[in-house]
Order: sequence, then structure tokens, then C-alpha cells
Amino acid sequence: MSLLDAIADVGVDQRRGGYSRHGFDPVELELRSWFVAEAQARGLAVETDRNGTLWAWWGAPGDRAIVTGSHLDSVPGGGAFDGPLGVTSALEAVDLLRARGFTPGKPLAIAVFPEEEGGRFGVACLGSRLMTGALDPDKARRLTDPDGVTLADAVRSAGLDPAGLGRDPVGLGRIGTFVELHVEQGRGLVDLAAPVGVASSILAHGRWRFTFTGEGNHAGATMMGDRRDPMLPAAMTIAATRKAAVAGARATVGRIVPNPGGTNVIASSVTLWLDARADDTPRTRAVVADITAAAQAAALAEGCELTVTEESYGDTVHFDPVLRDDLAACLGGVPALPTGAGHDAGILAAHVPTAMLFVRNPTGVSHAPQEFAEPADCAAGSAALADVLEHLAQ
Amino acid sequence: MSLLDAIADVGVDQRRGGYSRHGFDPVELELRSWFVAEAQARGLAVETDRNGTLWAWWGAPGDRAIVTGSHLDSVPGGGAFDGPLGVTSALEAVDLLRARGFTPGKPLAIAVFPEEEGGRFGVACLGSRLMTGALDPDKARRLTDPDGVTLADAVRSAGLDPAGLGRDPVGLGRIGTFVELHVEQGRGLVDLAAPVGVASSILAHGRWRFTFTGEGNHAGATMMGDRRDPMLPAAMTIAATRKAAVAGARATVGRIVPNPGGTNVIASSVTLWLDARADDTPRTRAVVADITAAAQAAALAEGCELTVTEESYGDTVHFDPVLRDDLAACLGGVPALPTGAGHDAGILAAHVPTAMLFVRNPTGVSHAPQEFAEPADCAAGSAALADVLEHLAQ
Repeated sequence: MSLLDAIADVGVDQRRGGYSRHGFDPVELELRSWFVAEAQARGLAVETDRNGTLWAWWGAPGDRAIVTGSHLDSVPGGGAFDGPLGVTSALEAVDLLRARGFTPGKPLAIAVFPEEEGGRFGVACLGSRLMTGALDPDKARRLTDPDGVTLADAVRSAGLDPAGLGRDPVGLGRIGTFVELHVEQGRGLVDLAAPVGVASSILAHGRWRFTFTGEGNHAGATMMGDRRDPMLPAAMTIAATRKAAVAGARATVGRIVPNPGGTNVIASSVTLWLDARADDTPRTRAVVADITAAAQAAALAEGCELTVTEESYGDTVHFDPVLRDDLAACLGGVPALPTGAGHDAGILAAHVPTAMLFVRNPTGVSHAPQEFAEPADCAAGSAALADVLEHLAQ
Repeated sequence: MSLLDAIADVGVDQRRGGYSRHGFDPVELELRSWFVAEAQARGLAVETDRNGTLWAWWGAPGDRAIVTGSHLDSVPGGGAFDGPLGVTSALEAVDLLRARGFTPGKPLAIAVFPEEEGGRFGVACLGSRLMTGALDPDKARRLTDPDGVTLADAVRSAGLDPAGLGRDPVGLGRIGTFVELHVEQGRGLVDLAAPVGVASSILAHGRWRFTFTGEGNHAGATMMGDRRDPMLPAAMTIAATRKAAVAGARATVGRIVPNPGGTNVIASSVTLWLDARADDTPRTRAVVADITAAAQAAALAEGCELTVTEESYGDTVHFDPVLRDDLAACLGGVPALPTGAGHDAGILAAHVPTAMLFVRNPTGVSHAPQEFAEPADCAAGSAALADVLEHLAQ
């Protein structure tokens, strides 16, 4: 049984399909406990830092370590591989290196970052953003989940002190090089007939919350001409995403919540979330500006108010080209691919030499139950990660 | 303190605003217990019939009784008056009639119907539809709430036998005349400067569930041209409601649920509910056909599947004109008004002489926290209901 099989029953979402595992919820905490036990069974010393990231050290902790890892949380109804594959492959890489008789010449650690998807508190890469100072800790503590629980309360329930959240230069200083292995979220490696590749770049991307406020009323008793129905401008905004996302840009509304959400009730307000990405910041901002303009015009036409809030933003990431080429060569010349998906590695890349390994995904699908990687490709990924860690930590 | 004030704290919805009180949920069960206690305090004998409707009898139960009443449940985030006002006014009318020294010459009862809004199980007027046979009990037992609880389980938890749900000719035979008092859901009485009116008709109306199925995927890694995003045809369908609802028809989407509903996830499916109403069945069907055609075209364009399910439908209700004119005259010539809102009285009207009294609503808003009636108008409504019951039950 592979390590991934061992957690196949944890966090299954019967309603949505796939997995729902969110930062500091009971499911993610169970997975974290499982990781701690697996790491300790390998003689790795596990620490939890003040932002909730787990560190499993092979040998003595130290500065400028070679660090690999990923996350255990998922999007709502997500796949089995996005996140956990990078964690289980790291544990398997340690097993492979030991079987090879390798002893690292530098500090080596596996890191598990919390709430990478932002599926609970809305900010993706929460753990790495906090550590690097990309997210203000006061703002972070006030983030709420859909039930109104604050991040401060959630981390307190998980045994952390919310006052400790925030920039951690000591923790960041321990990372000399970071390598994250991840299932590919696209068909690039399928087209290249390669089981493993390295990452070249990540699109600029962000999340924006649009709230339209109108007048709640009775769906049967209110004449059409008397309505200020926020569902209409929300629909126009969704339609606008398709027109605005051109030339490789992406714009998505995957989440929309009408209030109160009754069948026979004109909503009083509707909130939707826009995920927008493009090659660079000017193009991403242009997409969001186009969609916002369409949303404002539609809101005005319906007599509704609109507020737009930027929940997170990250510029284009270009992974360290020297490290990228070094690792590709170490792996026998595997291809380098760009991606539209954000990662903790993308946040860390602004601070330390960072690389990513991708494992082939035959469906190309991610953030959905169809996300997949063949066992043989997963094994190739773990072996590649072992090669890379041996190369870097010798 | 009025009777309505006594329940002002029950079922407050802190998240949505207003009240969320749904059929057989803890809040509605608390309100039902409160009603039983209030009825018993007045010496009324309370029965629960096999569909969960409460009956409080003044004197001996009997056939062809004069029955008044309404419901205690609300839409999600609804107002304080829609439903409860008809129940509290009935209790107050009994008090007034006793103070007048009146003793009914015919059996007289207050009925409280469950789940009139369909806010939990999706079918409006659930109790009266079950009693009259308008809803198949097998279908009813299989209805589920948003948490997947079936109606069968919900009524069992409330102490009812789910096998007993369904047509109840004995119960229906006990109703000689039904009168429901209700807050007006519009500004008709405001414009007429009248505190109380009678109902003339209810629009034909129904609910249709539209489910669009596409392909869930990653919001960042999936090119726009590779998408089958069900959010797009859902948005086009919402836009189509405004075009289709003409000439007094109403079409509303107040509830939409994307699955899985993540910000960085292209939805795999989106379900929305259409509430459509018009003067008669042909016009209502035409509105729904227009919207369905737009939905199908948009689904096809996006490579999505569409299924449309009719959850409920009711033809236009014309309240008994003899009874309507009799009651209007009994109240000194109050006005008669049509309404777009459905009621248990509308379901019963196909079987027994049925009438409604409306109480003025200064905001015209309903199904929202702004729903209102002045205390003086509520008192006028209770007095009018007492007059009507005295007239009918003498």
C-alpha cells in the first residue's frame, strides 16, 4: 500500500465527491497527525512553527537547509494528489535515500504548509504567505471561514498561539533551497510523453470578492419593474469573465453565495469570487478591470450597490533558472513547463532559490475527483525527488 | 406584549438577518410547542394530524368546521409576519370573541400547517398539499433538505409516523370554510389606505430545478478554450429570466449552488432554482419554456448537460367569489386584491370554500427582514378575523 493509499479514506466528501480537507479543520488535523507519526517512524524530528507549518528534520535542524514538501489540505471536493503527493513523495524520497545508504551533508527537512488552497479562510498559500510576511498577521487573524470562525480561533483550537502568526525570518532563514513536488495540473507532460518535469513559471494571479447588494423581497409578489435583484448583475459578471479572459488569461467564478438563498425570495445580496490569472500583472489587472467595469455597469442598471475586495494577489513567479536547469539536468534533461496554478513554492520563490517537480496527470484535471497520476509515475516522481535531494544535500 | 412579540427571539438568523424557521427543524418545533401551550392556555384541545398539521379546537371537533390559521415556518432569512401573523391573529380572535361573549354555533378550529414556504424540503405548502393529495406521499417522503435529511426522517424525529403522510379526506372533510389571515406582500392596501382587505386570486406558480453539469477543473491551470464550465449557462439562465417575465409574469432565481463551490475551482455542476408565476397556466408555462430554451442553448454552447425538474406547480387560484364578497361586506366593504404569493389557502381553495384576509404592509416587502405591519393594523386584522369567524360560526 502506498502512503497516498493510507490516507485515501480521510476527508472524503460524500456530497461534493472527492476530498474536502481544509486548514486546521478536523480532517486536516488528522492528516497532520498522520504525517507526524510517519515522520517520527522514520526517525525524523518534527516541529510545528508559529504559523502552523510542520517541519520534519532528517538529522539536526539548521540554517540554509534543503527543504522539500507541500500541503495536505484540498479545495472543496478536490482530488487526492494536489498537495498530499508532494508530502508522501518526500517521505518516500527519504526512504529511497536511506536505502541508497545516503546521509545528507546539509540539513534536510520536509515541510507541510497549512491551508495552501485557501479553501477555508479564502487566502491561498496561507502558511507560506504568513512566514514570508506577504500576509499581514492582523488581517490574517480576522479572516473567517464560512461558519464565521476566525483564523485566530481556528489556530488556537489547533494548539497554536494566534499571537505568533506572522513573518518568521528565522524559519525562512532555515530554507537554503526549496523543492516542491506536485501533480501536474494540465496535460503538458502527457503531450511530451514524460512522467516528470520541472516548473518554469507561475501566472500572476489573485482573488477578488464581489458583493452586490439590492433589495430582498418576495419572488411572487414583487413586480419585475420594482426589483433591485443582485442576482442579475452577478450573472452579468459571470458572463463578462469569458469576454475578458483572452490571450492566455484565465477568469473563473466557481463560488457564488446569494443571501438569503431561498427559492421564493429575491436575494438581498449576492457574493461571488473572481479568480483571475494572466502572464503578468498589467494583463491580470486589465482582466479584473474589464470584469469590474461590466459588474459596475450591471449593478447600476439594476439599482444595486457593488463592493469589490481584493482577497489576495501574487505577481508572476519565474523559478530560479539556474536551479531549474540544474535539476532538469540532474534528472536527465526532463522538460520545463509553466503553470497557471499557485503554490507555496511560488510564494517562497521571492525569498529563496525554489524549484518544482511535476508528475504527469493523464486526465489533465485538477481540483476535482478526476485528478490522477499513475502509480508508476508517482514512483518516478519520488525517485526524481530523491535524486534531486541527494544532488542538493550532498 | 403581543403574541408576535413573544416569539420574536425564536429562529433569529444572525448570518442572513431576519428569521430562518423551517419545517420540523428545532426552531419550528419550538414554535409549534409554543402554539400548543398558547392554545391549551385558552382551553382549546390540540391535535396533530398525520401530516403534521396542528389543530386547536374551540369546543368539540366536528365536520364542516370554520377553520382559520396559517403557518409558523419562514423562508431563509424571512420576515416576522409571513405565517406567524395568521396564527397569532387567530389566537387573538378567539380572545376577542370570548370577550364579546360569543360561543360558536359550529365547530371552530385554528390550523397550523407545516413547511408552507418549502424552505427546507423545497415543496411549498407541504402540509396542505399532502392533506389534499396534491403531493404524492412517496415522493414527499423522499424529499431531502440541504443536509440530505429526508422528510421521512424529519417527521419521524418530530414524533410522526412517515407512513401516515398523504391524502387525508377525513381531515379535509372537517373543514367547512377556511380563512387565512396574512400580511400583505405588496403595497396594494397602502395605495388604498386600508388596513385590511380580502384576497381575490393567486397567480399560477411553480418551482423548477435546473442542474447544469460540466467538467470540474483547476481555475488557474485550465485554458479558457478547454473549459466546460456550468457557471456560464447558469448565468445565461438568470439573465434570461428578466427577458422572459413580461406582462405581469414573474421569474426569479434566488438560490444557486455550485458544486464544489471553491474559489479556485471550475465548478463540475451548478444547480439553480427558478420560481415562475403568471396570470394563468399557459402564460406561466410559456415563461418557463422561454427560460428553459435559453438555458439549453447556453448549456449546449458550453458543452454542458442540463436537466430540468419541476418541483411543484399550482394553477391560478380564484377564491370563492361568494365567500369573498360576503366577508368583504361583513367587514364594511374592504377591498379585494390579487396576490402573487402562494398560500395553504390556495391549495385548500380547490376543495373547500376558502378566503384570505390581508393586513397592510407599509414596506410592501416580504420574505425579508423589512416585512412589516403596524401594531394598530395587526390589531385591526385580529378584530376583522374575529368578525369573520363570528359571522361564519354563528
